[in-house]
Amino acid sequence: MSRIDIEISEVGPRDGLQSITPIMSTQNKKAWIKAEAAAGVPEIEVGSFVPARILPQLADTAELVAYARGIEGLQVAALVPNFRGAQDAIAAGAHKITIPLSVSETHSLKNVRKTHTQMLDEIARIAELVKAQPAESRPIFEGGLSTAFGCTLEGAITPEQVFRCAEALMQAGCDELGLSDTTGYADPRSVRVLVKGIWQHCGRESLNGVHLHNTRGQGLACALAGVDLGLTTLDASLGGIGGCPFAPGASGNIVTEDLVFMLESMGLKTGIDLNKLFAVRDIVRAALPTEVELYGFTADAGLPKGFVAA
Amino acid sequence: MSRIDIEISEVGPRDGLQSITPIMSTQNKKAWIKAEAAAGVPEIEVGSFVPARILPQLADTAELVAYARGIEGLQVAALVPNFRGAQDAIAAGAHKITIPLSVSETHSLKNVRKTHTQMLDEIARIAELVKAQPAESRPIFEGGLSTAFGCTLEGAITPEQVFRCAEALMQAGCDELGLSDTTGYADPRSVRVLVKGIWQHCGRESLNGVHLHNTRGQGLACALAGVDLGLTTLDASLGGIGGCPFAPGASGNIVTEDLVFMLESMGLKTGIDLNKLFAVRDIVRAALPTEVELYGFTADAGLPKGFVAA
Repeated sequence: MSRIDIEISEVGPRDGLQSITPIMSTQNKKAWIKAEAAAGVPEIEVGSFVPARILPQLADTAELVAYARGIEGLQVAALVPNFRGAQDAIAAGAHKITIPLSVSETHSLKNVRKTHTQMLDEIARIAELVKAQPAESRPIFEGGLSTAFGCTLEGAITPEQVFRCAEALMQAGCDELGLSDTTGYADPRSVRVLVKGIWQHCGRESLNGVHLHNTRGQGLACALAGVDLGLTTLDASLGGIGGCPFAPGASGNIVTEDLVFMLESMGLKTGIDLNKLFAVRDIVRAALPTEVELYGFTADAGLPKGFVAA
Repeated sequence: MSRIDIEISEVGPRDGLQSITPIMSTQNKKAWIKAEAAAGVPEIEVGSFVPARILPQLADTAELVAYARGIEGLQVAALVPNFRGAQDAIAAGAHKITIPLSVSETHSLKNVRKTHTQMLDEIARIAELVKAQPAESRPIFEGGLSTAFGCTLEGAITPEQVFRCAEALMQAGCDELGLSDTTGYADPRSVRVLVKGIWQHCGRESLNGVHLHNTRGQGLACALAGVDLGLTTLDASLGGIGGCPFAPGASGNIVTEDLVFMLESMGLKTGIDLNKLFAVRDIVRAALPTEVELYGFTADAGLPKGFVAA
């Protein structure tokens, strides 16, 4: 009997907090991370190694990685935008580092001022750095396909563009891929098309997870499409935080609480205690100004009478 | 090429408005119905033939049925709780009448003070009445399986209970069945179990649609599960109205706008113009006090850049 069927990766401390203006204190972030790990969440992306002048909300990422590593059984993930960030993430001790590659080159140029070729060179250098680490401290290196479902600047992104970038990321030395609906453009059909296509191009082991936004309310339906195919890792954000979901570039991850409720209702084990997870909302709520909206329905509605987790 | 792949039945004027305290004026209801039909919605459940002392919000149902029948191409549906309501619905000219049978007998006793046997006797009488109508004015008679996914009073409802009620409804003379998640307890797995089981017990033609609530955020994922199986009719409510989703008995239908966006994104034709549908929100928003929350994300986020409908 497997302990976990679907692994939830909580990205709120990174993707949620980077999308809102208020800065959460390091102490509150630690309380959040600690409580969510205690609820059974197996992986938390605690921050991003970007310069503090760009994202002051995440300036304490190194400290959070070190803190989270002290929590037994927790996989500690961090985003890195470049080689320098990867060096910092490795020095801090991240178990997993993810670098996003915008499938939309327009978005890449605007976001990190790099072409695909420049990004892939950087990614290859990081892959070498990762592989040079001693086995016991070598992180998993994930290449994230961002804007894979469409771009707020370019509009439609073709599956073929995604597959080319997927192949390039694997050739550059990534251990695995991530598939990201950065813009909230995904629908269940496009999830199916991209996941199956990436598996055909890069092999079944290349992709296990998807990162979805709930900008147009499609998050859980897209997650279901992925789980039906056999994906085993889903990113989500407690309370779906990510500020205004209507901003250009789009934000608002799928809500961890509602996602876990869906999976457990379906008989899929997440290892997460739903009532403990609901209680984490109180920590996050108290740590943010009231104008930051917490999304999700299940925590407020409560579990169904007689509910039995998977 | 089929004109429509999935038929959306707008239930906001009935299920939405019955769940909130403020009473919308008949004039505003007509404006809503007219605008939504003009957006391409093929069926609208305009009200329920219940005594005005029980649901004063829906006291104008007969007038609305008569009005809506004047809109070309629109299928006009109404709920009826009993024989008397069915008489009124037929007199008013409804194209489709639905009577709910609570699979939870506890809920049935509390809600309409009738046992299953009493309800099924009533339903058989209505079926005779319906069959006695001249062909040109004979409505479709649907038996709705309410509390099919669980009951806020009884807790779990077994699939076998649902199947027994489904068979009894068909034997009582219903033309077709409806499957209702009255309480917001459904998940994609339970949708699959119940739909497939009902087809096995009552035949493939007995059930084409599902009525879902978004109480725990699972609405679109459950709708996807149904569409994947081959369901062709989905109930939804503009703005997901239905008042507080946390009240006992639960409310808050799935959001028509987000559902139509999902289906059209997936290449499934609804016949609905999304921008026209979004504009209907303004009518509903203006017709209700601000404390009534409108749900849904797509209307506010806007359509993706370069979006092409099915």
